[in-house]
Amino acid sequence: MADQQFLTHALSNGLSVGAEKMPGVRSAAMALLVPCGASADPHDRLGTANVLAELVMRGAGDRDSKQFTDHLDTLGLQRSSSAAVLYTRYGAAAMADNVLQGLDAYADLVRRARLPENDFEPARDLALQSLSGIDDDPRQKLLIKLREIHWPWPFGRNPMGDKSSLEALTLSDVRRSYQTRYTPAGAIFAIAGDIDLSDIRDRAERLFADWQPTQPEPPQGQQTQRRYHFEQQATEQTHIGLAFDSIDETHVDYYLVRLAIEVLSGGMSGRLFTEIREKKGLVYNVSASYSSLPGIGAVTGYAGTSNDRAQQTLDQFLIELERLSEGVTQEELDRAKIGLKSSTIMSGESSSSRAGAIAHDWLIRQRLRTIDEIIKAIDGVTLTAVNDYLRAHKPGNYTIAIVGPKELVLPTNA
Amino acid sequence: MADQQFLTHALSNGLSVGAEKMPGVRSAAMALLVPCGASADPHDRLGTANVLAELVMRGAGDRDSKQFTDHLDTLGLQRSSSAAVLYTRYGAAAMADNVLQGLDAYADLVRRARLPENDFEPARDLALQSLSGIDDDPRQKLLIKLREIHWPWPFGRNPMGDKSSLEALTLSDVRRSYQTRYTPAGAIFAIAGDIDLSDIRDRAERLFADWQPTQPEPPQGQQTQRRYHFEQQATEQTHIGLAFDSIDETHVDYYLVRLAIEVLSGGMSGRLFTEIREKKGLVYNVSASYSSLPGIGAVTGYAGTSNDRAQQTLDQFLIELERLSEGVTQEELDRAKIGLKSSTIMSGESSSSRAGAIAHDWLIRQRLRTIDEIIKAIDGVTLTAVNDYLRAHKPGNYTIAIVGPKELVLPTNA
Repeated sequence: MADQQFLTHALSNGLSVGAEKMPGVRSAAMALLVPCGASADPHDRLGTANVLAELVMRGAGDRDSKQFTDHLDTLGLQRSSSAAVLYTRYGAAAMADNVLQGLDAYADLVRRARLPENDFEPARDLALQSLSGIDDDPRQKLLIKLREIHWPWPFGRNPMGDKSSLEALTLSDVRRSYQTRYTPAGAIFAIAGDIDLSDIRDRAERLFADWQPTQPEPPQGQQTQRRYHFEQQATEQTHIGLAFDSIDETHVDYYLVRLAIEVLSGGMSGRLFTEIREKKGLVYNVSASYSSLPGIGAVTGYAGTSNDRAQQTLDQFLIELERLSEGVTQEELDRAKIGLKSSTIMSGESSSSRAGAIAHDWLIRQRLRTIDEIIKAIDGVTLTAVNDYLRAHKPGNYTIAIVGPKELVLPTNA
Repeated sequence: MADQQFLTHALSNGLSVGAEKMPGVRSAAMALLVPCGASADPHDRLGTANVLAELVMRGAGDRDSKQFTDHLDTLGLQRSSSAAVLYTRYGAAAMADNVLQGLDAYADLVRRARLPENDFEPARDLALQSLSGIDDDPRQKLLIKLREIHWPWPFGRNPMGDKSSLEALTLSDVRRSYQTRYTPAGAIFAIAGDIDLSDIRDRAERLFADWQPTQPEPPQGQQTQRRYHFEQQATEQTHIGLAFDSIDETHVDYYLVRLAIEVLSGGMSGRLFTEIREKKGLVYNVSASYSSLPGIGAVTGYAGTSNDRAQQTLDQFLIELERLSEGVTQEELDRAKIGLKSSTIMSGESSSSRAGAIAHDWLIRQRLRTIDEIIKAIDGVTLTAVNDYLRAHKPGNYTIAIVGPKELVLPTNA
């Protein structure tokens, strides 16, 4: 792998810039994260960040709503926007020159959105509609509930908000959040592709250096309920989610956990896939994954199965999780390493993947990692280290969520 | 754009090879299509191709089920398999050398699968499970139904099969289909990435040249029902699908249609998005797209909306479709061109996208197109040509499918 060319640059107002020049591509992708996430929504106005992510697109700076979208489409930008727990994220990808030409509009979006009165009701209605759509999607409902009851408050909040909050939400609520929570302090601007790094630095200075930081209010509220939730619904399948705490991504043992989860659920030779899906035919979908926020980590599992096989599926899922503590084999570890390295190297060819990885690295680690660094970390893991870790950290203290027609018998250690 | 380097090569048994050497990448991706699709499933054994796509992974050539998956995971292959209407498709992507090393196993898979008796019941159970899961997913249910009632028989068949067929299916049914329908006549092997074209040609000859073609039986049956379907279900949202016939991809006017649909549904300045979602806030999701099979094409639309707004959504959707015949503006066409060109050029950077495009081009056109050729075709479209076409081809004779609690009033020309 040729050396990767990075820029990292911190503005004095707290905005961080991360960029990568990719020699093999003509495209570029950018991700702009502002620290307006569900975790800091006012406790009686959950969903504020979500409605804002819709409303800011309705005109910013010199452009009204139609001019704004027409402008970005004239550049051919493939774009995305979403409110998450810690951030609202705006993404754009296209030929590199077009992404660069679109940056002014994105600076307008996070700094000079018009938030027009006439568009507030439609934007809020859309948020209410997408929320009510969850009832038609039991899998999504399950995963939202699992987050809510597992992650420490307020990180488990559903970014979509809740019905009563959204119904109570006003334009002035939304405008106030924009003024205080669309702030450069903690914002991240990441870009990767066919770009010039010193040009990016200059552009970031020009677009963002005079952006004044604010002091957002800390969130209020508390954990309402944790660890177990059963939602009765007359579904055709029972949806099972489980989670347990793990280490965060900066922990020295991080790749031990990642590789162990890869043994459990990576590829088609993963234990969950072979034991629960292939041999027993219990489930169509079964998986486990590692997920994290700054300073915290968790392992999350999901299975969707027919109602009459739900109990057996949950039992087997727990057996496989606990069997991890007996260790993995050298062959399993080798395959896990190759799988993780393969996806890491391949994501290095995509400007969108790289922009996302840069933003994520900055958020979690406040520095950028090269792909070589990640590969070396994976290669450096020994079988002894993984198995020592697994023996010492038996899964347990599970959070369990179930959506389906019938409650299941839980393990005694849940 | 530098000249693209292609190989096309036809084996005497009917298998077509298409390959592209991509200078900028270290990865490779391959797609192997065998002509075993739902359209040729025996009429009382619908879902045969689907069960086969699962069962062939359970061991092939010298490797049993575990050895087979372990082998592919040891190469770090990110893989996919799916039975579609005309084909079953196997895909794999990884570092180029690893994809090349995995080709022997894929040749085993399509030529020497073991189809073990013990794995038949679990494989069939999984197919039944995923079929029953559709009841928990009204959007997917709607889209399956729309295909079924719009595409000419047997191209609208649901590749997942149906319950009675799957329950009646036996191992010998599946084995017979494998023997006759996993055949080189009409199969496509596509690969793109960091490869050597003459090496690919040699490998294809070695792996596939002595594969004997068979003569599959033509499908039996007939169109059962067309044009309108209402499925009552107590859902939170009403799901609306509509379709009308269009020209096929090889038609000289193809890019007129593609660009008109881009005006309707491309980017966020698309008419459906601005008129139905943004201004009226009627729907969270609304879109239209062009889809095709060899020799036939269709425009398909989808909207998911709250039940009390469903009628208005359908009405507005039809108004926007019919308004197309009044023509589009130069600005709309320019944006549509940029959007389509942007996504075309960007997909040229991904080995997986290129392998997919090569297989698709071969299937539809029996030749490969360069990205430059596609860009030129898009650039060559004039406003007059689009608007003349739209005036002469007013949408109509709609197929409409609805999943929701309440039937809707249909337009008189549906």
